[in-house]
Amino acid sequence: MHKAWQTQDVKLDMTRGKPSTEQLDHVSAQFPWDSGYRAADGTDCRNYGGLDGIPEARELFGAILGVPADNVIVGGNSSLSLMYQVITHYLRGLRLESRDSSFVPTFLCPVPGYDRHFAICEDLGINMISVPMDNNGPVMGVVMQHARNPSVVGMWCVPKYSNPSGITYSDDSVRALASMRTGHPNFRLMWDDAYALHHLTDTPDLLLNIHDACNETLNPNRAISFCSTSKMTFAGAGMSAVAMSPSNRKAFLKSLGVQTIGPDKLNQLRHVEYLRDLPTIRTLMARHAAILQPKFEAVYAALAPVADIATWTKPHGGYFISLEVENGCAKRVVELAGEVGVKLTPAGATHPYGKDPDDKFIRIAPSFPSVNDVTTAMDIVALCIRIATQEKHLRK
Amino acid sequence: MHKAWQTQDVKLDMTRGKPSTEQLDHVSAQFPWDSGYRAADGTDCRNYGGLDGIPEARELFGAILGVPADNVIVGGNSSLSLMYQVITHYLRGLRLESRDSSFVPTFLCPVPGYDRHFAICEDLGINMISVPMDNNGPVMGVVMQHARNPSVVGMWCVPKYSNPSGITYSDDSVRALASMRTGHPNFRLMWDDAYALHHLTDTPDLLLNIHDACNETLNPNRAISFCSTSKMTFAGAGMSAVAMSPSNRKAFLKSLGVQTIGPDKLNQLRHVEYLRDLPTIRTLMARHAAILQPKFEAVYAALAPVADIATWTKPHGGYFISLEVENGCAKRVVELAGEVGVKLTPAGATHPYGKDPDDKFIRIAPSFPSVNDVTTAMDIVALCIRIATQEKHLRK
Repeated sequence: MHKAWQTQDVKLDMTRGKPSTEQLDHVSAQFPWDSGYRAADGTDCRNYGGLDGIPEARELFGAILGVPADNVIVGGNSSLSLMYQVITHYLRGLRLESRDSSFVPTFLCPVPGYDRHFAICEDLGINMISVPMDNNGPVMGVVMQHARNPSVVGMWCVPKYSNPSGITYSDDSVRALASMRTGHPNFRLMWDDAYALHHLTDTPDLLLNIHDACNETLNPNRAISFCSTSKMTFAGAGMSAVAMSPSNRKAFLKSLGVQTIGPDKLNQLRHVEYLRDLPTIRTLMARHAAILQPKFEAVYAALAPVADIATWTKPHGGYFISLEVENGCAKRVVELAGEVGVKLTPAGATHPYGKDPDDKFIRIAPSFPSVNDVTTAMDIVALCIRIATQEKHLRK
Repeated sequence: MHKAWQTQDVKLDMTRGKPSTEQLDHVSAQFPWDSGYRAADGTDCRNYGGLDGIPEARELFGAILGVPADNVIVGGNSSLSLMYQVITHYLRGLRLESRDSSFVPTFLCPVPGYDRHFAICEDLGINMISVPMDNNGPVMGVVMQHARNPSVVGMWCVPKYSNPSGITYSDDSVRALASMRTGHPNFRLMWDDAYALHHLTDTPDLLLNIHDACNETLNPNRAISFCSTSKMTFAGAGMSAVAMSPSNRKAFLKSLGVQTIGPDKLNQLRHVEYLRDLPTIRTLMARHAAILQPKFEAVYAALAPVADIATWTKPHGGYFISLEVENGCAKRVVELAGEVGVKLTPAGATHPYGKDPDDKFIRIAPSFPSVNDVTTAMDIVALCIRIATQEKHLRK
């Protein structure tokens, strides 16, 4: 009897509690519905599974990040979540390896930087060391010195249109980050390529491919790059992606599989249907730029009167302007602006632990308000810069 | 000048890099689109924010879980992710409190149970102790004895239509779990109410409200309940929820906010539009039951010939049947079935560390295949039970 069944071509999977296609069909006949549900490989995107995302979404993000689709994992609506998961996974490995219970993992944090990156480190007990930035990216002399310390296990990078300075790392910086000697053999670059295609001008910055650079210098596992469609389609309802070496990917998927059965594949399908390919995305991003660029111009115009006491970046892309006022004035400017109803990112947010030692950096986020509102807000900010600077000089 | 601005009603927020409404409108004009984008409170669901979910989704899950909407957090497509995040957050608190570095947090695990729960514990270094179940739920004498141990900090429960036995905890069991003395003051019930409305018959089981029971016994923080729409709408693209006491919720949201800016609110909006209220959901669930019930019946019919050497549950809901064969035969049955093309959940998966000490439990998941395929598969399983049992007796 058992032998007889073996000659039949039985292939039945009773392993998991998956709803049947009939059930899903019943729902999708009435659900607010917008598109298909079959991925290119035939996967029913309505059901469980597909931990690393659907093939066409991996393909699309592979094109954006400049890596093979096989190196990509496409997640849910939040690249921040992917970063958190990658670091948690990475830390666990480090702690298992380290026999020294006093080992405190440390990340290098170029400043000014992104407060949510720093919040992840604080949350996970990762020590942070600030590294200054210049127009080429993080100051590499400082980076390389710190990187020799075996407790320095990683570094945050927003390499293109950096949050908030808008700086793009130079080719030399990227090569140096890929090739530098590190004290810890598993040192990781958390490469947050959030603004890969988010240009504001007709002269976009070019960023060297970090994965290529790492491969060339025989550090293929060093870079882990992230991006999302949050600022392409919907900030709250997009899809995110992470790219890494095959061995890193394999280990990370094992961790990820404990936390979820898979991402929202229907949303991935919708996104691929809409975003299609790089040329289509570029057209979309040009439209975003047309809406954003006048807001950035409004900031520059409103700040012009305080050019004697402040400087600011004029990025070719991204979502932010970094405003530098005189030392000791940033908190006061934010406070003064707040008093008249203009909420700015708290001074200090650009630095680890919320502490800007010079109290001079202010992140300006002009994307959401209208051009007129940006002008009003920045006129007020300019006034507040003038007042705060005068107050400082009076104190002397 | 600054004074003059103060008299104006300026309210401008330049804190975050949110896309503008104009940008979102441009996208939604062409995106595969299915519904509105405004939540009941006016939130633009396309943009960032709303860490705890949109109000109407919290309302709906509040009704499902029997708690005020204010106690609910609605997440992404995976309740497993919420469980992982809740436990990670909880563990961190425990480890900060504990000055004993040898402290190993321990969870009680009713068996047979859900392998993905056990995988979370293994992943996070939580020790697991198996607790047997009877028809009233976990055997409370055993539970209460273990719970007095201060290292026992939590317990997994699938209290209704338990995975895989289909058992629903009796009122007495629920009250005992809510009121029992625990050695650790913060002992938590991970109450995975995955099958709250997932009845198979016209005589659904009733489950006592764990949050009410915990409130009545002055242990309001003890229960954390979870559910999702994975088996209502789309298994891969639904929404999940967690309910807990206000103080637990406040602390957890702080952790959650480090990992994400918020869930996919558009998907929540779509779901509320479709699922609407409890009566609408009940109608939908009746339709699912009509599809599922014949598959469960097919299992019972196919197993009837081996009633002399095996037993199985006949649940009133849920997605699984727990099959018990003679001691030492489960692995062999799964192996024999695999040899002729029927994949079953690995024997042992129902127990912590994948080890069923009696090697007798097999989880049957009949939801996905057609009724005919279920019959074929279970005919084969019945044959394999016969063979494995004969083999065992021949060995004696």
